[in-house]
Amino acid sequence: MFLGIEIGGTKLQIGLGSGDGALVARWRGMVNPAAGSAGIQEQIAQALPELLARSGIARGQLRGVGVGFGGPTDDATQSVIKSHHIAGWDGFPLARWMSQLVGVPAVICNDADVAGLAEACYGAGRGFSPLFYITVGSGIGGGLIIDGQIYRGVGRGAGEVGHLRPVYPSQAPGPILEFWASGWGIAQRAQAAEHHGADVTAIRTAGSGAITGKAVADAASHGDPTARQILDEAIQALAEGICSVIKLLCPRRVIIGGGVSLIGEELFFAPLRRYVEERGFAAFAGLTEIVPAALGEDVVVHGAIAYARQKLGG
Amino acid sequence: MFLGIEIGGTKLQIGLGSGDGALVARWRGMVNPAAGSAGIQEQIAQALPELLARSGIARGQLRGVGVGFGGPTDDATQSVIKSHHIAGWDGFPLARWMSQLVGVPAVICNDADVAGLAEACYGAGRGFSPLFYITVGSGIGGGLIIDGQIYRGVGRGAGEVGHLRPVYPSQAPGPILEFWASGWGIAQRAQAAEHHGADVTAIRTAGSGAITGKAVADAASHGDPTARQILDEAIQALAEGICSVIKLLCPRRVIIGGGVSLIGEELFFAPLRRYVEERGFAAFAGLTEIVPAALGEDVVVHGAIAYARQKLGG
Repeated sequence: MFLGIEIGGTKLQIGLGSGDGALVARWRGMVNPAAGSAGIQEQIAQALPELLARSGIARGQLRGVGVGFGGPTDDATQSVIKSHHIAGWDGFPLARWMSQLVGVPAVICNDADVAGLAEACYGAGRGFSPLFYITVGSGIGGGLIIDGQIYRGVGRGAGEVGHLRPVYPSQAPGPILEFWASGWGIAQRAQAAEHHGADVTAIRTAGSGAITGKAVADAASHGDPTARQILDEAIQALAEGICSVIKLLCPRRVIIGGGVSLIGEELFFAPLRRYVEERGFAAFAGLTEIVPAALGEDVVVHGAIAYARQKLGG
Repeated sequence: MFLGIEIGGTKLQIGLGSGDGALVARWRGMVNPAAGSAGIQEQIAQALPELLARSGIARGQLRGVGVGFGGPTDDATQSVIKSHHIAGWDGFPLARWMSQLVGVPAVICNDADVAGLAEACYGAGRGFSPLFYITVGSGIGGGLIIDGQIYRGVGRGAGEVGHLRPVYPSQAPGPILEFWASGWGIAQRAQAAEHHGADVTAIRTAGSGAITGKAVADAASHGDPTARQILDEAIQALAEGICSVIKLLCPRRVIIGGGVSLIGEELFFAPLRRYVEERGFAAFAGLTEIVPAALGEDVVVHGAIAYARQKLGG
């Protein structure tokens, strides 16, 4: 039995499972950014005994803990490199802390990397290799999975597709893909459109007054032209990012999860596939399928358990 | 003993070696593009007996043939997918033809992929993994080498860094990296500059009247401002391409070969490293070394031999 823990910028989730793709028990909480890393550590320390008690699993049955962390992590030191969202994590020896807390070995990895591993083991990537997983949520992350193993480059991560930028000459680098295509970026584009005089009434109505990525998606699904254009531009940029991934890695499948992907087939996946097809490298045409993720909100927890099982023995 | 054959758009080379990093004999020719693939096949059929006779190696001593082809190749069918330069290659079962010609098993692969393998085995990548090799010549190609093995994605190639394009929203995709940073692209930019009224006297002088990538490099090394600006823009674009590679793959080393890289440390590698450092993903800063290739003009031949030895047994 393994614990899988997702530590994100907003979500905190803990799951218990044997690594067979099912969870025996789960705990879900929200992060309080103001409380920093210490607040999250306290939440975990309180939630764990409660989760174990509720599931009827004794500590002695635990083989290890896997953590999917929302930021780059270092394999050698098993510590966080950086958190872009929560203060106090930079350089933190997270696996050591977790191991001391639970009393069993612990491993950490980037959340998108373990999510990709989960899709490879239990989800939309089962039986396919190589795989590139992309999560398009408030931010954009990614992971490359080759023959069931996370590719980590020199050991501090890889697959950072959300940080791809225009490849052209310029003194000042252009914006990264997250600027255009993340939930945060889509909301920012809508706010900028309003600032430039566009009619964002339908977006504000969909968001109960607020401009969010979800509100843009909802307004687009109701046919609002401003929302449709912003979404179309996001998908164009994402398509170029995926074309870059295919040119460099030619994976069997690109699996896309995260909140923005929930916009669905008609308004998201269909135009995305069309743009990738139109813009791709001709010699690699038709080799890479672009498919929705299968595991939903538990994906990082599943991946953290799978990673712990791989690294700490099953 | 293995034969290694490089089939490019301009170069045709054959080498003989055991896969220990040294060549027993070599043959070098130029491709006649007007004669198409049939012309190249004839050149090979004539050169081979001559090379074997000259080296004193009997056909019976040959274990296999490796071919590094200047275009995308298919692993499963061992045939050429496409040649952008020479007519007649598309879909050609090159390994089968070669095997029939020589009478021993043959394997083919993309030239930049086997060049990367050669640098991994005998050159600037020895002892480092993962590696990303980039050749910046008349075109731009690349290859990813993980633990001494070429990464081929789903089996038709990968590492096509020269085809990376701007990641941003647009109805019309922007130009690929080759447009800015290849020898061909650099020459094109200089011709465009002349067309727009720039003073290209120094470039034409350096090229004995012609505007070529080499002439731009030579004029830049003599301080010509037009040439310096064109070269600087090429290096900016290449730096963004390398930043994309690092974000997705975080290799231990990026190894750069090809004619353009011969511009050298001061005018090419130093500004390239500076741009990559300034523009890179902060969490991966300082992890990837950018180094010149070590194997020079024989790199594809060495790689073809190494590939044949891996695939056909040593």
